[in-house]
Amino acid sequence: MTVNFNGVIRMMGILFLVLGFCLIPSLIVALVFHEMLAFKCFVFTILPCFAIGFILIKLFRPSLIKLKARDGFLIVSLCWLVASLIGAFPLWFSGAIPNYIDAFFETCSGFSTTGSSILADIEALPKSMLFWRSFTHWLGGMGIIVFAMALLPSIGVGGQLIASAETPGPTLDKVAPRFSDTARRLYLVYLFFTILETLLLLLGGMNLYDSLVHTFGTVGTGGFSSYGDSVAHFSSPYLQWVITIFMLLCGINFNLYFVLARRGLKSMIRDSELKLYLLIILSVSALIAINLFATGVFHDLEEGIRTAVFQVVSIITTTGYATADYDIWPTFSKMLIFLLMLVGACSSSTGGGVKVIRVLISLKLIRRGVSLKLHPRRVVTVTLGRKEVPQEVSTNIANFVFFYIFVVFMGSFIISFNGFDLMTTISSVITCLGNIGPGFSLIGPVMNFSEFSGFSKLILSLLMIAGRLELFTFFMLFSPHYWNSNKS
Amino acid sequence: MTVNFNGVIRMMGILFLVLGFCLIPSLIVALVFHEMLAFKCFVFTILPCFAIGFILIKLFRPSLIKLKARDGFLIVSLCWLVASLIGAFPLWFSGAIPNYIDAFFETCSGFSTTGSSILADIEALPKSMLFWRSFTHWLGGMGIIVFAMALLPSIGVGGQLIASAETPGPTLDKVAPRFSDTARRLYLVYLFFTILETLLLLLGGMNLYDSLVHTFGTVGTGGFSSYGDSVAHFSSPYLQWVITIFMLLCGINFNLYFVLARRGLKSMIRDSELKLYLLIILSVSALIAINLFATGVFHDLEEGIRTAVFQVVSIITTTGYATADYDIWPTFSKMLIFLLMLVGACSSSTGGGVKVIRVLISLKLIRRGVSLKLHPRRVVTVTLGRKEVPQEVSTNIANFVFFYIFVVFMGSFIISFNGFDLMTTISSVITCLGNIGPGFSLIGPVMNFSEFSGFSKLILSLLMIAGRLELFTFFMLFSPHYWNSNKS
Repeated sequence: MTVNFNGVIRMMGILFLVLGFCLIPSLIVALVFHEMLAFKCFVFTILPCFAIGFILIKLFRPSLIKLKARDGFLIVSLCWLVASLIGAFPLWFSGAIPNYIDAFFETCSGFSTTGSSILADIEALPKSMLFWRSFTHWLGGMGIIVFAMALLPSIGVGGQLIASAETPGPTLDKVAPRFSDTARRLYLVYLFFTILETLLLLLGGMNLYDSLVHTFGTVGTGGFSSYGDSVAHFSSPYLQWVITIFMLLCGINFNLYFVLARRGLKSMIRDSELKLYLLIILSVSALIAINLFATGVFHDLEEGIRTAVFQVVSIITTTGYATADYDIWPTFSKMLIFLLMLVGACSSSTGGGVKVIRVLISLKLIRRGVSLKLHPRRVVTVTLGRKEVPQEVSTNIANFVFFYIFVVFMGSFIISFNGFDLMTTISSVITCLGNIGPGFSLIGPVMNFSEFSGFSKLILSLLMIAGRLELFTFFMLFSPHYWNSNKS
Repeated sequence: MTVNFNGVIRMMGILFLVLGFCLIPSLIVALVFHEMLAFKCFVFTILPCFAIGFILIKLFRPSLIKLKARDGFLIVSLCWLVASLIGAFPLWFSGAIPNYIDAFFETCSGFSTTGSSILADIEALPKSMLFWRSFTHWLGGMGIIVFAMALLPSIGVGGQLIASAETPGPTLDKVAPRFSDTARRLYLVYLFFTILETLLLLLGGMNLYDSLVHTFGTVGTGGFSSYGDSVAHFSSPYLQWVITIFMLLCGINFNLYFVLARRGLKSMIRDSELKLYLLIILSVSALIAINLFATGVFHDLEEGIRTAVFQVVSIITTTGYATADYDIWPTFSKMLIFLLMLVGACSSSTGGGVKVIRVLISLKLIRRGVSLKLHPRRVVTVTLGRKEVPQEVSTNIANFVFFYIFVVFMGSFIISFNGFDLMTTISSVITCLGNIGPGFSLIGPVMNFSEFSGFSKLILSLLMIAGRLELFTFFMLFSPHYWNSNKS
């Protein structure tokens, strides 16, 4: 059986249409702010999107052959790649980002909710372009395909298979019997958070435009801001706390909000992943706050705690917003931030990284390893909240963690061609693969990625997509087994 | 069943006797060089060793209860700890290293074949003290307990169980039917390499003392030199190549030398681990040499290749000798050196680190992970040289790699209290845990560990022992399960 190219190309047609629609809000923003060049550039992206979309859908009729998991990997990877390639056009056309690779990097960073930027002077860009840049976070946060599925349930032929290639985390809980229903419900929660945060930011005195931009960056756990100094631009503690809370909420498994709605808070916080997630945030924030007070970085109690919590939540949820430059903090705090980068948010959240559940199971595998050395013949199982974790799941998780480490090493090896120091090199790969945003040294929270070579930017862009799709979906396409039809 | 304390303490008695004997060569060196203070210090360490050893053996008679694997973990960990604590005495007594924690660090570094040093001025030490320091490499290289077993086969009650807790690598191949025979045969190969290298270094014009010191450092893959500038002190290409070759030979699984003797070279190089080990050395050396020529670090062809190969072999075998300061090399080469630090030598060699076989199987697990995503219902096995790797072995290896990463992170977290930069902090843990020697930044090849706090030195010392004993043996003692007799 070969890849179902007919189905794949038809899906691309749908993607072009969806992208066309997604560009319309930015078009409106261009009108509102009288940015005529930007307006034209959006029009000249939207029209071809619709045209290509219609042509592809007309040419490639729905076939009788259902889409399989195998096709799902290709569709999902292509969707993210094509979305980033197309999404970069307005930024490039308008001259906002004169280099196409830079624009591609920026859009990949947007859709993958990474938030790393090559822009040295963010405020110099047209507001509509910054709006588009941030809107990609919002689209990417829940998944472009899940988004399409929520809009058009009729695509859902093998929908769950495709979406499972896109959704973060080791398992995809079925919340509703039909997958398109699940997708829609997830988007409802997402929309609810979006509206609520926007309102709360407006209440704190932020204007509508900034409120929307920072809400997209928060709920998508992306991290793009309309200001060069990120959230530090807003000195209001209220605004910083609002953003902190919504980052934290969007780093939680969205399915747990259905548990909350149906069975209450007690059932929700019984979740092992959530417990560890909150425990890490609390303990690491406390350690960093103590370290910052002890070393005299902060003197005001509220400011110190707020900054520590903000930075911890921003990094563990892989958002990447900054209210302080952690790169100049003492080593102890920097090390904690570095370790958080390798943890990531909860599964089925909008955050990236390894995910808390995988870290938890890895720790349990270590404990089992010690037990096995002590009692080689005893059967030791890994449990999670009283339930046994099937061997299959823990094997999958082990495979993922290995793969993740391997990609970090290989990526660092490739980026080292660029000749930057080791911390810049390694942290650039970790931050892009984990969809975080900032790194250390030359790419610290107040720096940007503009110094990297075009080649490095391309590699880092692909790592963002690979990380967002949890490695296997993306890298599978490089395996000869995938393309070898005789073997499947 | 509780721990067999009688047997454990009796083994400690034997260790004291063995240590007493092991100090005698250094005593002779002190006599030869007329170092009377050092001589006295050795005498005042040797005599109590013999006294304590005899008393313990008299008091704790061989019991009828056999030693079990469980006791093996405690015996082995205690042996290495006590050997380092006692071995530090002459260095401290004599004032060569005025601080006891420093002396302990140096001795741990010796026995564990790490080669990290706190000495800023190595040449200032008495020659007999430097000899003792290097001799600990030789003792630690093959394992202190294996050494005792080779000398006194009668200890061998449950000998294999104990030795398997000490021997590096996932499996312990039985070469001879009785374990004490295997131990003796391994030591014969080791002795052969020691004598051969000493002779070859003498032939190259090195004096006997330096030849012995550098042979101990090479065959034990330790890395202590009698000079502050390490092997760079000897500008002779011949001497550098001899040391390179012996580092390389001692990084190979020693059991393969029996295969070589019995079935020839063809059978030997059929070993998958050996093939990958040689492939890594060749390809990484080539990449670094090209990088060094391209960036103008070297102009002379032979010198460039020699330096690249020397450094690659020195790091992958976890020896840590230096003929150049790789910390000032271009990032590409530095990154390769960093990655090599995480690979380590072959299993059952004298080298440390994760070991090539584990890296190989981890890579195969990643490949299997991709296959499983593509064909979830297919049974995909991991093979090694046409043989299937049992699920159990690959699970063990996955556990080990997880544990290793976890210890690197936790160690870096603890060392970050010291406030050094991130690369110094992380590389200090990697280099100590992997028994390598040098790191990056403040602990590069031409630097030393003297700046670390006493607390950090203690932690790093324990990490060296933990790494030499491949984590589980050492860390198991911190598990409540180990001490809880009801549960076993």
